[in-house]
Amino acid sequence: MIHFDDLYRELPYTKLSHWLETVPSQLASWHRELRNSKFAGWQRVLNKLPELATTDVDFSEQVRIGDDHSIDAGMRAKLEGLLSQFHPWRKGPYHVHGLHIDTEWRSDWKWDRVKPHLAPLQGKTILDVGCGNGYHMWRMKGEGANMVVGIDPSELFVMQFLAIKRLAGNPAGIHLLPLGIEQMPPLAAFDTVFSMGVLYHRKSPIDHLQQLHDLLHPGGQLVLETLVIEGNENQVLVPTDRYAKMRNVWFLPSAEALKLWLSRIGFQHIKLVDLDQTSTEEQRRTDWMRNESLADFLAPDDKNVTVEGHPAPLRAVITAQRPL
Amino acid sequence: MIHFDDLYRELPYTKLSHWLETVPSQLASWHRELRNSKFAGWQRVLNKLPELATTDVDFSEQVRIGDDHSIDAGMRAKLEGLLSQFHPWRKGPYHVHGLHIDTEWRSDWKWDRVKPHLAPLQGKTILDVGCGNGYHMWRMKGEGANMVVGIDPSELFVMQFLAIKRLAGNPAGIHLLPLGIEQMPPLAAFDTVFSMGVLYHRKSPIDHLQQLHDLLHPGGQLVLETLVIEGNENQVLVPTDRYAKMRNVWFLPSAEALKLWLSRIGFQHIKLVDLDQTSTEEQRRTDWMRNESLADFLAPDDKNVTVEGHPAPLRAVITAQRPL
Amino acid sequence: MIHFDDLYRELPYTKLSHWLETVPSQLASWHRELRNSKFAGWQRVLNKLPELATTDVDFSEQVRIGDDHSIDAGMRAKLEGLLSQFHPWRKGPYHVHGLHIDTEWRSDWKWDRVKPHLAPLQGKTILDVGCGNGYHMWRMKGEGANMVVGIDPSELFVMQFLAIKRLAGNPAGIHLLPLGIEQMPPLAAFDTVFSMGVLYHRKSPIDHLQQLHDLLHPGGQLVLETLVIEGNENQVLVPTDRYAKMRNVWFLPSAEALKLWLSRIGFQHIKLVDLDQTSTEEQRRTDWMRNESLADFLAPDDKNVTVEGHPAPLRAVITAQRPL
Amino acid sequence: MIHFDDLYRELPYTKLSHWLETVPSQLASWHRELRNSKFAGWQRVLNKLPELATTDVDFSEQVRIGDDHSIDAGMRAKLEGLLSQFHPWRKGPYHVHGLHIDTEWRSDWKWDRVKPHLAPLQGKTILDVGCGNGYHMWRMKGEGANMVVGIDPSELFVMQFLAIKRLAGNPAGIHLLPLGIEQMPPLAAFDTVFSMGVLYHRKSPIDHLQQLHDLLHPGGQLVLETLVIEGNENQVLVPTDRYAKMRNVWFLPSAEALKLWLSRIGFQHIKLVDLDQTSTEEQRRTDWMRNESLADFLAPDDKNVTVEGHPAPLRAVITAQRPL
Repeated sequence: MIHFDDLYRELPYTKLSHWLETVPSQLASWHRELRNSKFAGWQRVLNKLPELATTDVDFSEQVRIGDDHSIDAGMRAKLEGLLSQFHPWRKGPYHVHGLHIDTEWRSDWKWDRVKPHLAPLQGKTILDVGCGNGYHMWRMKGEGANMVVGIDPSELFVMQFLAIKRLAGNPAGIHLLPLGIEQMPPLAAFDTVFSMGVLYHRKSPIDHLQQLHDLLHPGGQLVLETLVIEGNENQVLVPTDRYAKMRNVWFLPSAEALKLWLSRIGFQHIKLVDLDQTSTEEQRRTDWMRNESLADFLAPDDKNVTVEGHPAPLRAVITAQRPL
Repeated sequence: MIHFDDLYRELPYTKLSHWLETVPSQLASWHRELRNSKFAGWQRVLNKLPELATTDVDFSEQVRIGDDHSIDAGMRAKLEGLLSQFHPWRKGPYHVHGLHIDTEWRSDWKWDRVKPHLAPLQGKTILDVGCGNGYHMWRMKGEGANMVVGIDPSELFVMQFLAIKRLAGNPAGIHLLPLGIEQMPPLAAFDTVFSMGVLYHRKSPIDHLQQLHDLLHPGGQLVLETLVIEGNENQVLVPTDRYAKMRNVWFLPSAEALKLWLSRIGFQHIKLVDLDQTSTEEQRRTDWMRNESLADFLAPDDKNVTVEGHPAPLRAVITAQRPL
Repeated sequence: MIHFDDLYRELPYTKLSHWLETVPSQLASWHRELRNSKFAGWQRVLNKLPELATTDVDFSEQVRIGDDHSIDAGMRAKLEGLLSQFHPWRKGPYHVHGLHIDTEWRSDWKWDRVKPHLAPLQGKTILDVGCGNGYHMWRMKGEGANMVVGIDPSELFVMQFLAIKRLAGNPAGIHLLPLGIEQMPPLAAFDTVFSMGVLYHRKSPIDHLQQLHDLLHPGGQLVLETLVIEGNENQVLVPTDRYAKMRNVWFLPSAEALKLWLSRIGFQHIKLVDLDQTSTEEQRRTDWMRNESLADFLAPDDKNVTVEGHPAPLRAVITAQRPL
Repeated sequence: MIHFDDLYRELPYTKLSHWLETVPSQLASWHRELRNSKFAGWQRVLNKLPELATTDVDFSEQVRIGDDHSIDAGMRAKLEGLLSQFHPWRKGPYHVHGLHIDTEWRSDWKWDRVKPHLAPLQGKTILDVGCGNGYHMWRMKGEGANMVVGIDPSELFVMQFLAIKRLAGNPAGIHLLPLGIEQMPPLAAFDTVFSMGVLYHRKSPIDHLQQLHDLLHPGGQLVLETLVIEGNENQVLVPTDRYAKMRNVWFLPSAEALKLWLSRIGFQHIKLVDLDQTSTEEQRRTDWMRNESLADFLAPDDKNVTVEGHPAPLRAVITAQRPL
């Protein structure tokens, strides 16, 4: 039984109190309609996690809970056995009592590229759309955010997040909710909204940008990261079929086109702050993610094109502001 | 702007946390659809109420906040001027800093009749359906209830309650919500549910009893007070037109019929604990309720019949238990 | 696949065209949510029914389609084999090509008692609430009604009706819909509304009467038949548990009480036109209804009381008019 | 009072009978929520239209009802006075009893370009999305279509259509409904779906193409006309602000990009059948449309660019098939 009472206890004290008008009924529906056959098993694993309360955590430089000496080898082996049942781990890495969860992504590298361009997070209310298992949410807490909410419909990611949260002693002010962005009302309440790795999965990128806009408090900052292509403001790639073996990829605009779209929606201060071709060092198969990874998605003989012949993944980070 | 954030802050800590799935959206709808043209005026009056924080309150023997000496005569006159704008005051009396709000009803007399038959309220979660301005809710707090919720759709009663609550220093654990019982989900969560003076206004008394049943936690106590007639278990009066000048009176069963209905719904330990013909001392015109009152509803020459010729108001109190 | 296109073709030409705003989506939902495990089997039986188009029908004096000579004995045996699979047959009797469907009820006797009190049905639009398999609907057609709609949520009754309708050559202007009365909008469109044998099954008889009122065109006639008890206008029996072995019996008012309720709702010209204690000749076990019947529901030694000790079934027919 | 009973009478006889599950309630909502302050006036004009039943109509070569001799000059003047109150007339031209309604658009020219590429319309069920006042719908009837449905949310266009339909003697099989495409369920029932001049107004062109796909019967033909730009399959123009003075223009893909999108949705046999830069002869100010027109939307000194500097309107017609 996953419950969200700790969220409901915190919301009335934040700028998000009006969210209570919709979110509890959505989460109750989610709970009634759980369909993943593995969910009950995951829940048992979660309940078996030992109580290892520690105050030695670091979310500022990494996501680290305890260290090599905070538990013994037997307990560490048990922990590894439990956490490995949440395979595959995509976003990370996590360091838990000396256990190194080496995830598919070096999400810390992305954070290092993004962080210099963020409005200060200290004391802020943050939304992370498509947050995965919540890695970046911990880093936001590490920057002093007051309330970090992530949304991602994947049930596995919720369980991974709850495992880390429990091991971190269930801190307040950080919540991952199993919701899609289409379930979010236009709250106009977040100081910063992150959407990283989401836009290219949307059939309607304009509607996505509009939703992000409407979630931001006036004056708030959008941090948008998505796949782009090279080219001028009229260049947009829509794959005929798959892109890097993914079926659900729709619009890959150029960074210039994306900036124009943001402008059209009404954003201001639109800046391309990072452009980076993903390397097979940043995204790769590991012991904690044993399925195919980037190396399998690129042409064997040319790392600059996907197996389908599209340009290899190039990721832009753009920041923008909802006008005051 | 009436807001309910204090309710939302408390709910997750009570047995009522699942109520968050529906109640915030209902209260937001209520606020959007306010139609009483006097509401804005009432709100201004409420905002003008002085801050008179006092710890000298008594809800156990009466509803008293401060006394003759807690404010001066000028302030008392101001208070009277403000509170009198919430005319008519039906349920009471209230004693506020030496001001005696002499209401239409001596609701304290009813409380004295009911109280000996109540399961202890100490630490309990209570619902008062059709609570009026909330007089009995304060008395429930006086008995040590942890959480008292009243529902009544009248906007005036909400304002009267909020005025008293503010003068009492906005204590936690007592909330009047502008809802009808048909908006209540079957929470199965209250230790005690009061329905006093409601049943005879319902077109479907069976559905009302079923709703009360479904609001109670298994093992919880129902306290039902309604108009009855004399007679055996097959005696039910449905007025052809009005009853005591009221248009919306439907079923007046005998106490025996009412007990049978409760049994049919599945209640146990059904007891008639009080039967009382309302006197013109208990319900009467006062300075704080200057409209017609009981004396005007009874036949001039026979206080035992209403102006329509029906039996004069006879009120039964029945207690019953939802089975464990 | 049961479809209702013939209804939809007729509705726009009747006073019921506004019903198209709700009824097709309700019937589509019904079809999607069919749950009776026997339904598919019934449908196969229905599809096997022979095409025996005949113009020799009588709905005026009885419900008769063809006669002893319209088909041969072999075909009659086949017909009997098919129709018997829709056991139990409660309302009737039906005479189909010489086959006598001897149903539990002599519904023709009830019709004979009701018919003299009906406003003329010639050319009218009629609703039969709780119509069972539709026996009385055929008799209404026999009186010249233009459009007869029956509603009854039982899936078996729908199949029985469709079987008879097919054997009658699928005439226009007669439709049985698997709906409950709570699904009916206030159409204010029927010239006559029948509710026979329904009211005592309703938890809220007042709401039932109100719904019937709101379905009638102003000036239209209500024909209400229900179980009553002896007594004055304050006499109402609510069985503590079962009545004649039925669980879902709620209010059995006296005829006088029922007339008062109708008056309270706003009906005019309220008349008790028939009062009849059901005999074991009128309701009994037959070859086409082999379950328990009235004789099993009455006390073995006293036919005037039920097995539970309640008064034996006494049925009143009341007519009333919605004011113009 | 606009009613749609004639539509409801026809639907059950067509492949669209399941549309009755949603469309009547939508049209009833539309009628309740009419907001255009001119609507009542338009309705009076409509009711004043003379009854001029004529069998002399031509929808095949033009849209012509009667001719110079079918009514006298006085009646023609009256007709002109009435019809001119539905200003502005955009799509046409219409020839009504010798009256030439010279509309902004020579929609007949577009029809002449499209018609050679259509699957035969004889006997077919057709949808025209964004049909304007319905000009092309008449031409579809002229090709022998059995059932032509147009949808367009503009209340004025509905009135223009109803005026023409009345003058044409209210023929069956042609209906304009005040609906947006987002209100259309995936009927999978139309033989041909036209979407002309709509796509560039949609925030989500992919969703639009998907909706069109889902409206078509398998094997049915899509006829898509929209603004395009020159360029390869990765070229898409999204205007930063206005396009030809229109605010609500979103995606102008190249024809190649559009073909790719159609392919991605699952369409087959995708063909660019026409590409045409709109001339100021085809779209221009007339007596029946006295507002700004194309000449005002183009740069004064270069008819190949809009006033904003975008490429001048270039329109592609693409046909495609929903797979069987």
